Amino acid sequence: MAERKDKTTSAARTGRVRTEDRARIDGRTHADGRTHADGRVRAVIDALMPRVDAGRFPAKCIAGEAVEIEAHCFADGHDKLRVVLAWQPSDAAAAYELDMQAQGNDAWTAQFTPPAPGRYRCTVTAWVDHFASWRDELERRDDLADLRVALQVGAALVSEAAARARAGDAAILEDWAALLLKSARPQAAVDAPSLKALALDPARAQVLERYADRALADSASLEIVADRKRAGFSSWYELFPRSASPDPARHGNFRDVEARLPYVAEMGFDVLYFPPIQPIGRAHRKGANNAVEARSGDVGSPWAIGSAEGGHKQILPQLGTLEDFRRLLAAARDLGIEVALDLAFQCAPDHPYVQSHPQWFKHRPDGSVQYAENPPKKYQDIYPFDFETQDWCALWEELRSIVDFWLEQGVRIFRVDNPHTKPFRFWEWLIEEVRRTAPDVIFLAEAFTRPRVMHRLAKLGFTQSYTYFTWRNTKRELTDYFTELASSPSRNYFRPNLWPNTPDILHETLQSGVRAAYAARLVLAATLSANYGIYGPTFELMESTPREPGSEEYLDSEKYQLRHWTLDRPDSLRSLIARINRIRRENAALHSDGSLRFCALDNPQLIGYLKSEAAGNVILTVVNLDPHHVQSGWIELDMGSLGIDAAAPYQVHDLLSDQRYQWRGGRNYVMLDPQRMPAHIFRLRRRLRTEHDFDYFM
Amino acid sequence: MAERKDKTTSAARTGRVRTEDRARIDGRTHADGRTHADGRVRAVIDALMPRVDAGRFPAKCIAGEAVEIEAHCFADGHDKLRVVLAWQPSDAAAAYELDMQAQGNDAWTAQFTPPAPGRYRCTVTAWVDHFASWRDELERRDDLADLRVALQVGAALVSEAAARARAGDAAILEDWAALLLKSARPQAAVDAPSLKALALDPARAQVLERYADRALADSASLEIVADRKRAGFSSWYELFPRSASPDPARHGNFRDVEARLPYVAEMGFDVLYFPPIQPIGRAHRKGANNAVEARSGDVGSPWAIGSAEGGHKQILPQLGTLEDFRRLLAAARDLGIEVALDLAFQCAPDHPYVQSHPQWFKHRPDGSVQYAENPPKKYQDIYPFDFETQDWCALWEELRSIVDFWLEQGVRIFRVDNPHTKPFRFWEWLIEEVRRTAPDVIFLAEAFTRPRVMHRLAKLGFTQSYTYFTWRNTKRELTDYFTELASSPSRNYFRPNLWPNTPDILHETLQSGVRAAYAARLVLAATLSANYGIYGPTFELMESTPREPGSEEYLDSEKYQLRHWTLDRPDSLRSLIARINRIRRENAALHSDGSLRFCALDNPQLIGYLKSEAAGNVILTVVNLDPHHVQSGWIELDMGSLGIDAAAPYQVHDLLSDQRYQWRGGRNYVMLDPQRMPAHIFRLRRRLRTEHDFDYFM
Repeated sequence: MAERKDKTTSAARTGRVRTEDRARIDGRTHADGRTHADGRVRAVIDALMPRVDAGRFPAKCIAGEAVEIEAHCFADGHDKLRVVLAWQPSDAAAAYELDMQAQGNDAWTAQFTPPAPGRYRCTVTAWVDHFASWRDELERRDDLADLRVALQVGAALVSEAAARARAGDAAILEDWAALLLKSARPQAAVDAPSLKALALDPARAQVLERYADRALADSASLEIVADRKRAGFSSWYELFPRSASPDPARHGNFRDVEARLPYVAEMGFDVLYFPPIQPIGRAHRKGANNAVEARSGDVGSPWAIGSAEGGHKQILPQLGTLEDFRRLLAAARDLGIEVALDLAFQCAPDHPYVQSHPQWFKHRPDGSVQYAENPPKKYQDIYPFDFETQDWCALWEELRSIVDFWLEQGVRIFRVDNPHTKPFRFWEWLIEEVRRTAPDVIFLAEAFTRPRVMHRLAKLGFTQSYTYFTWRNTKRELTDYFTELASSPSRNYFRPNLWPNTPDILHETLQSGVRAAYAARLVLAATLSANYGIYGPTFELMESTPREPGSEEYLDSEKYQLRHWTLDRPDSLRSLIARINRIRRENAALHSDGSLRFCALDNPQLIGYLKSEAAGNVILTVVNLDPHHVQSGWIELDMGSLGIDAAAPYQVHDLLSDQRYQWRGGRNYVMLDPQRMPAHIFRLRRRLRTEHDFDYFM
Repeated sequence: MAERKDKTTSAARTGRVRTEDRARIDGRTHADGRTHADGRVRAVIDALMPRVDAGRFPAKCIAGEAVEIEAHCFADGHDKLRVVLAWQPSDAAAAYELDMQAQGNDAWTAQFTPPAPGRYRCTVTAWVDHFASWRDELERRDDLADLRVALQVGAALVSEAAARARAGDAAILEDWAALLLKSARPQAAVDAPSLKALALDPARAQVLERYADRALADSASLEIVADRKRAGFSSWYELFPRSASPDPARHGNFRDVEARLPYVAEMGFDVLYFPPIQPIGRAHRKGANNAVEARSGDVGSPWAIGSAEGGHKQILPQLGTLEDFRRLLAAARDLGIEVALDLAFQCAPDHPYVQSHPQWFKHRPDGSVQYAENPPKKYQDIYPFDFETQDWCALWEELRSIVDFWLEQGVRIFRVDNPHTKPFRFWEWLIEEVRRTAPDVIFLAEAFTRPRVMHRLAKLGFTQSYTYFTWRNTKRELTDYFTELASSPSRNYFRPNLWPNTPDILHETLQSGVRAAYAARLVLAATLSANYGIYGPTFELMESTPREPGSEEYLDSEKYQLRHWTLDRPDSLRSLIARINRIRRENAALHSDGSLRFCALDNPQLIGYLKSEAAGNVILTVVNLDPHHVQSGWIELDMGSLGIDAAAPYQVHDLLSDQRYQWRGGRNYVMLDPQRMPAHIFRLRRRLRTEHDFDYFM
C-alpha cells in the first residue's frame, strides 16, 4: 500500500493542479467564447442551430413566426440532462426561458416567436440534472432496502434545492426532505409502493425544478435576426418614374407615378421600386442606347448620380420636389404599396462630393479623378468611391447618412446597386447600424456575380438577394438551383428575390416575344420564391427586342432615354399578373420557401413542385417549359409527406383556370398547352366528408 | 453647393467616426478571433478547411503525407487577390510560407506535409494585390496615352515596394521605378509594345512580390493534428494474456505471450492489444459466465482493476513482473508488433485508491462507496470515479500519471475503455497533455454508444474509434454507414477501427459458425477500413457459441475465466488472415479511407467498393453477404474516374485466389461461391503495352 501511494503524483497528493495546467484545462474547454474553469462540467453542447458559419453571422427569421432552435446536447454516462433556451432582444436585459425537449439522438429543440423585427440572442444552457437522474432511477427500483437508501439520497438533493428556493417553496421542499428521510427509516415501516409514490410526487418535483443547480452547466449562444413579414414575402414592380408621363413628349414625374399607382395596385404588387431618383450627372453623360456621347436633350443614366443640382440626398428636379416624393409615398401606402429606392454608391464626375471630398476618390498621376474602367473599357461617366481612402471613417458615415436621409422621408426598402463592388465590411457595418434603430428596413442585394460572393452578402446582412433565376431555364437548372437555395445552410440566410427581367437583363427566352414564355417565367418566379419582381411595363407589354443580337440589353433602354408605354394594350399580361399575385396572397404555402420540394415528372419539359405550410395549405405548381408545344406526363406526389390518404380521391384546384380535377393516389396525369396557359397552380384539397352527391374539401 | 454640403454629417466633415462607432465597426469585423480595426481591409476569407466544428477542434492528418488546405477568398470588385499559407508546428516560433493557388469559384488551395507527429497551425492571409491588379489591367491596355498613365501609376507602386525592400532588391526596384517614369514621358518616344514589355518584366515583378504590402490583409487560422502512420493504418489482434498458457491447467503469463508472438506476426498483425493487465479486485469478484458470486479459483474480470496487490500502475502478479512486460514489449517490437494496453478508469472495491482517496468516489448515505448501477442492475464489483468531486484536479492529474507510467514502460497505444462514461472535458485535456510531449501516442475510443457522443470523442482527440460495423451487416447498412464515415465532416476527425468481434460482442452473424460468414466479415473489416482488428484466438478458431440464445456474450467468456486454445486446428482462419494482412500491406489503396466509393451492383447480396491512392494503386473488393448460396451479378465501375480506357481490356487480379480476369468497359460479371471464398479483392491493372502474345499490366 505504502509503495503504491508513492506512485501517485505530488499534484494528486496535494489535491492541486499546477497553475499552468489549470490554465490549459480552462483554455481547452472554451468553445465559442464560453468560459468554464471547472472540469466538473459534464454537459456538452455539441452543436447549435440555426447558425451561419458557426455563429459568425446571424441566421434570419420573420417576426411573428415561430423559429426553432436545435441543440445537440449530452453528457457522459447515463445521467439525465436538462436543457433550457433563453431568448431576448439582443439589447434587452432580461430573457424569456423555456425548457427544450429531447427529440431523440441527442437533439433538443424549442421554439420561440420573435415579437418584432430586430436582433435576438438565444442562449442554450445544459446541465446534468441530478434530481431527474435520481427520479429516473427511482422509477426502476423495487427493492425496499434500495428504495430506503435512494430516498435518503433524494432527501439530500431536495434539501440542497430548498436552500436555493424562495421562502414559500423552501418550506415545501424542506417538509418534503424531512418526510423522505422519515419514511426511509426501517422503523417507519412504509411499503415500497408508498415510498416510490412519495419520492415521485409530481407536484413537489415541479416546485423543485424551479431551483435546479446550474453551477456546472454548459452554455452556447447564437444570434438571430428577425425581419418583418414583407422581408419574407413581397411582390416587386420596378418602373422608371421619368417614363410614367401620359404625354410622350414630356419627362415623367412623381405626380405621373401617383396616377400610375392604381394600375400597380390592381396587379397586386406591394413594393414599387424606382431606379435612382437623384440628379443625373452631365459630364460624360451617355446617350440613347449607351452612346458614348449624349446628344442635347438626352436624359442620361439615373445611376450616374450627382450634378450641380445635388447629390445622393437630392431629387432630380424634373421628377419633382421632396414634398412630391413624400406625397407619392403616402398615396402608395394608402394602396398597400411601399416605395423602394435604389442605393447606388458611386458618383458622376460632376457630383458635389468630387469637389467637397476629393480624398474619397482615387486620383491619376495627372491629378484627375480615376473613372471606373475594366481595360480596354472605360466608364468615364462614373467615379467609384475609393474605399481604401485614409478618410474611410468619414466616407462610411456619409454613406450611412444618405440612408438616414431617405429613412427620414419614410423609405424602408432599398435595392442596393452592385454591393459586391464595395467592401463587405462596409455593408456589414452599414446594415447593422441602420437596423439598430430601424429594424424594419429591408436591403435587397443586386449582386449578379460569383456564388460565394453573393452568399457572403446575404450572410453579412442583406435581407433579400437577386439570384441566377434569369439564367436558370431548364428543368435540371431550376431543380438544382432552387433545391440548393431551399436547403441548409442557404435557407438560413439567403432570401432569393426572383426577377424574370430587369433593365439590365432581357434574357434570350423572352426575346422571342412568345406570350407563353413570359407567362411561364412569371409563374416560376412567383411560385418558386416568396419574393419576386418584374421590371415593367416592359414585362407585361412583352417588350422583347434586344439592342443587338446576342445582347441582353433592351433596345432603346429606359436606362438611357425616356419611353412612353401604352398600358391598356389588349395583349398585356396585367390580368394574368393580377391573378397570380392574388393566388400568392391567398395561399400561405407561397409565403415562404423552406418547404419547396420538386416532384418526379416523366417529361423533361414539365417541371412540378410543391409548397406547403403548417396550417395545411398545399400548392402544387406545374409549368410547361416549352412555349411552343403541348407537353404531358405523369407527376408523382409523396402522399405520405402530404398527409393525404393514398386510397381516397382528392381534389386539385387549378387557381389559374379555376378548373378542378379529381386525383387519386400519388401518380397522376398532367397536360399543358402553352397556347392556352403554360402552367397549373393547383391547390390540393383533401376531402373532408361526402354528403349525398357533394364532396367537401378543405 | 453650399446647401448640399450642409447635408453631410458633422462626422463626415471632420473625417472622424465617433469612438463608439469605430468600436462597433471593429467589433463586427472580428471573425474567428481575428482583429482588424481598419475598414479598408477588403479581402475576405469566407471559409477555411479542413476545420472541425468551425475550428473548435483540430482536423487530423498523417505526418509525412500531404494535407490540402482550402480557403474561400475574395474581395469586392475586380482587383486581384494574393493568398498565402503559413504553416508551423503550433509551438514553433517561425512558419513556412507558400502561395496558395486559385482553383476557380473563389477557392484557393495549397498543400503541405507535416514532417512529424504533432500539432500544427496553418494561417491563411489574403490581401488585395494592387501590383497584380495593375499588371492584369496593363496586359489589356494598348492605347499609348493610357499606357503612359499606367506606367506612372506602376512607378508609384514599385517605389512603395522599394521602400519595404532589402538593400539589393531596393536598388533594383528603385531603378525600375525610375525607368518606368522616364519611359512614360511623351518625349521618351517609346512605343506601346516596348512600354508594356518594360512594365510586365517578370524578373522585376518577382523581386517586387517579395515585398507585398500586407497592411490591409485578412487572415484566418486553423489547427491540425498530425498522427504517425500507424494511426491511419493498423491491424490489431486482441488476446487475453492469461489464456496464453500452453498448459490448460496453468494461468498464462507474459512469457507465454512472448512465445505466441511469432503466431501473431505470421498472421500479419502490427498491434497486439491486451485487456487490463493490472491486479484484479477480489471484493464482489464475478465468477465464470458473469456469475454474481465467484468460486474459489475464479480469476475475475480484468476490468475490475485494483486489489491489495496494487492499482493502475501495477501488474497482476500471475502475469509476471514489470521486467517481464518490458521484455515482451521488446520482443514484440523485434517482430514489428506494438503492444497496446487498456485504459479502464474505474476501480474494484479493493483498489488502493478507495482507501487513499475516498473523495474521488461517491458515497451513499450509509458511508459506503456507491457502486455502478443501472437500476435494477447492480455492478457491485465496480466503483466508478466521481468526476464531480471537488478534488477533480488531483483526480485528473492522477489519471494522467497512469498514462505517464505506461509511457515510461514503452507503451504508445491505448485502447480506452468506455470513454463515454467519463467527462468529455477530461479526455480533451488528457489527450492533449499526453500528446504535447509524446505526439506519437495513439488512443482508440471504445465507445459503443449514440452517434453524436462517439463523434464528439473523435473530435476532441481520440486517434481512432470503434464503430457500429459489428451491427452493420446488410448491403444498405454497410453502404450508408461507410459512405457517411468516408465523407466530410466525419473523415476530417473520425478514424474508424473495425472489429468483426470483441470479447463483448459475438454478433448473431457469427453464431452460425459458418466459415464463409467469418471470412466475409474479415474481408469487409480489413478492406472497408485502413484500421481493423480481431479478438483472437476466438475469431480464427470461429468460436461461435453465445452464453444463451439472443445474447452477444461468448459462452465461457475469457472475460471471467481462463481458456485454453488449440491454435493449430486445420480449420483455423489463420492463413486467410495472413493473406489478407499481406494484401493490406502491399496495396497502398487500403492504407486510408477517404477514397472509398461503392459500386452499383445489381444483386443485393453482393457488395462492391473501390479504394485508390495517388500513385495509381486501385483495389476493388466484392463480397458475397450470403454465406450459404452462390451469388452473381453485374458490377459497374466508373471508368472515367479510374482513368482506365473504357475501350481497351484491363486486368483484375484477385489477390485472394491469385486468379486474373480480363475485363472490358465499366460493366462486368462477378460470381462468388461462399463454399470456396465469399470475396474477391481485385487489384486493377491497366494494360501498359502488348508485345507478341503478352500483355503487360501495371
